[in-house]
Amino acid sequence: MPDFHSKALIAQGGGPTAVINQSLVGAVLEARKFPEISKIYGARYGVFGILKSDFLDLTESTTHNLEQVANSPGAALGSTRDKPDAAYCQKMFAVMKEHGIKYFYYIGGNDSAETCRIINNEAKSVNYELRVIHIPKTIDNDIASTDHCPGYGSAAKFVASAFAGVNLDNLALPGVYIGVVMGRHAGFLTAASILAKKFADDGPHLIYLPEKVFSTEKFAADVEAVYQKYGRCVVAVSEGVCDETGEPIVLKLQKQKECDSHGNVQLSGNTALGDLLADFVKEKTKIKRVRADTLGYLQRSFLGCVSQVDKHEAREVGEKAVQYSVWRDVDGSVAIKRAGDYAVRYELAALEQAAAKARTMPPEFIMGDNMITDSFINYAGPLVGEIGSMERLSAPAI
Amino acid sequence: MPDFHSKALIAQGGGPTAVINQSLVGAVLEARKFPEISKIYGARYGVFGILKSDFLDLTESTTHNLEQVANSPGAALGSTRDKPDAAYCQKMFAVMKEHGIKYFYYIGGNDSAETCRIINNEAKSVNYELRVIHIPKTIDNDIASTDHCPGYGSAAKFVASAFAGVNLDNLALPGVYIGVVMGRHAGFLTAASILAKKFADDGPHLIYLPEKVFSTEKFAADVEAVYQKYGRCVVAVSEGVCDETGEPIVLKLQKQKECDSHGNVQLSGNTALGDLLADFVKEKTKIKRVRADTLGYLQRSFLGCVSQVDKHEAREVGEKAVQYSVWRDVDGSVAIKRAGDYAVRYELAALEQAAAKARTMPPEFIMGDNMITDSFINYAGPLVGEIGSMERLSAPAI
Repeated sequence: MPDFHSKALIAQGGGPTAVINQSLVGAVLEARKFPEISKIYGARYGVFGILKSDFLDLTESTTHNLEQVANSPGAALGSTRDKPDAAYCQKMFAVMKEHGIKYFYYIGGNDSAETCRIINNEAKSVNYELRVIHIPKTIDNDIASTDHCPGYGSAAKFVASAFAGVNLDNLALPGVYIGVVMGRHAGFLTAASILAKKFADDGPHLIYLPEKVFSTEKFAADVEAVYQKYGRCVVAVSEGVCDETGEPIVLKLQKQKECDSHGNVQLSGNTALGDLLADFVKEKTKIKRVRADTLGYLQRSFLGCVSQVDKHEAREVGEKAVQYSVWRDVDGSVAIKRAGDYAVRYELAALEQAAAKARTMPPEFIMGDNMITDSFINYAGPLVGEIGSMERLSAPAI
Repeated sequence: MPDFHSKALIAQGGGPTAVINQSLVGAVLEARKFPEISKIYGARYGVFGILKSDFLDLTESTTHNLEQVANSPGAALGSTRDKPDAAYCQKMFAVMKEHGIKYFYYIGGNDSAETCRIINNEAKSVNYELRVIHIPKTIDNDIASTDHCPGYGSAAKFVASAFAGVNLDNLALPGVYIGVVMGRHAGFLTAASILAKKFADDGPHLIYLPEKVFSTEKFAADVEAVYQKYGRCVVAVSEGVCDETGEPIVLKLQKQKECDSHGNVQLSGNTALGDLLADFVKEKTKIKRVRADTLGYLQRSFLGCVSQVDKHEAREVGEKAVQYSVWRDVDGSVAIKRAGDYAVRYELAALEQAAAKARTMPPEFIMGDNMITDSFINYAGPLVGEIGSMERLSAPAI
């Protein structure tokens, strides 16, 4: 019979992904194998649920139920944006001690890694013996301690599949298409728009990342040049693009509009950018058919768009978290190391490293101010895996 | 050796779909079996390409190439929005006669059916022996002569998968989510948002169709009532919703904004509606987390989201078009008849019937002013087929 201080607690933080439940289920199934862990609890709504003692006993879930949950997008335990301070931690510890929690696994992005770091430091400072393991997930792929993040591959597959489709749509009914992709500071997801490209004249023809200064005038000129060449133009642009002063373009264009009309129109941030850029292109280039979409929440939640590599790795980081915590009795953040082309191995990074400044696209992935490199394609391609059919008719003209 | 007047011509019109190329390839492969058809040409960019004599010889395409194209979204021949008049027809006929075209297949929606009707009448009036067959496609599902339209099932699967995903996202991070779906006059696609619903409290909780009068005040009250009940609310709304005077809500809300600011802000139609409704809900209900997406072009083009039933039927309507034209020597529009649950048979409807007023959702598919019925689910479910996993944790609370 294990002693009382032998339970594990798992929770999810930040924005859900297509495979965050794989990590949850990987950790739960792995924890259930260990005699050192007497129970595995799930806290609902992240750290917030710990305060409320809002726990599910996942020791009792059937394997089939867990496997079905693993294949569902969204965060099955519920999520939170709360970031605990020392007082918040002490309240959590009171609940956790009461339940005999020795192992804490937190699945999330940079903010959740920071949450783990804070909890770990606070636990040490009050001599609470708690193993804290951060399990990485984010569609932004911006955690500094890992080669790539579970969640990115599936979101990247969504973005690549979306642009592959709109490229064919745009080929059939030519014009300008602008697709706005998530990612305020890191351009990894926007760059993924290139991954299904097959023919030299396939879109996206222009890709704008938050890592590069964005000029609306240059943008309109770029679009016009591509349109002159191909009679059409498909553009991927990150929601986070900024001008040389660091001001987001969406705010800048809104202000211009307001200025023109002497009004104070309020538009929600993300959806507006595509429309504003489309208006700008129409105004500057006289091209008539200009369309914009904002890919929105579907990027992280669309049912059925999962990369197989991403799915397996998300499962594995959950499994490794439990193994590290029990066998090595350490704290840290599970990291993916690229060991081959393509193969990975896992290691445990320091929580400080995972909680550090968000990673952005390295210079070798970016070409000029509106394209990405083959180096990026080699990096991201294996994470996304197979994408659907995108073929053209091969037939002679009469 | 067949006589000179023995060639077939196929073209695509209107907005592309995920399976329009299945119909193209179905017709091409079927035509290549018939000794009565000496060549099968494809006109690029619909009727516009006929004017320009812009033809591909699809007799020479390999079967593998055609099968790959069949599995690709978009219109592989290119499309057009042109609607020919008598003079346009005469120019087309000059080109078609020169090439010995006896059979003409046109894949498209209501407008393309009308194009077929006009071409057929004009051909008769000048004694040009031409078989004209309309092959139906549309994501709107609004062609009056058929039980349902190829293209709808896959678009409906996209919408159902999108709402299934955002429902789980919204369950993890509760708030109000508004998703704007294509369909200016017919609500079939918006109604499909319900098809992946599993648990009683799953979204979408409210569905607004263009068939019903939309009141923004009632909308805000509906959202608040659902939010009070479940602590969250997922809404599907058609881009085409109108008030009691028939004025589109997006224009109405824009005018209110303009009125406030005394300006003349121009917003592109579709994307604006979601943002404007989200702002309206925030203003009226004081709910803080309100998000909106516009599903946009991905609904008809997303790579890899194909209903198997839709795929097969799209192929079959192409095959039947060729069979009718050769064996029966008639003109018309291929129609799908529901023969069982679930099984279909094909028949040929009059072009006039396919070109008639667009179909909208029948009253038995609509419940009140913000929900759809089981009758609709029974109708649309088989067209969409299997959708991905959407499971919740089954575990006892501590």
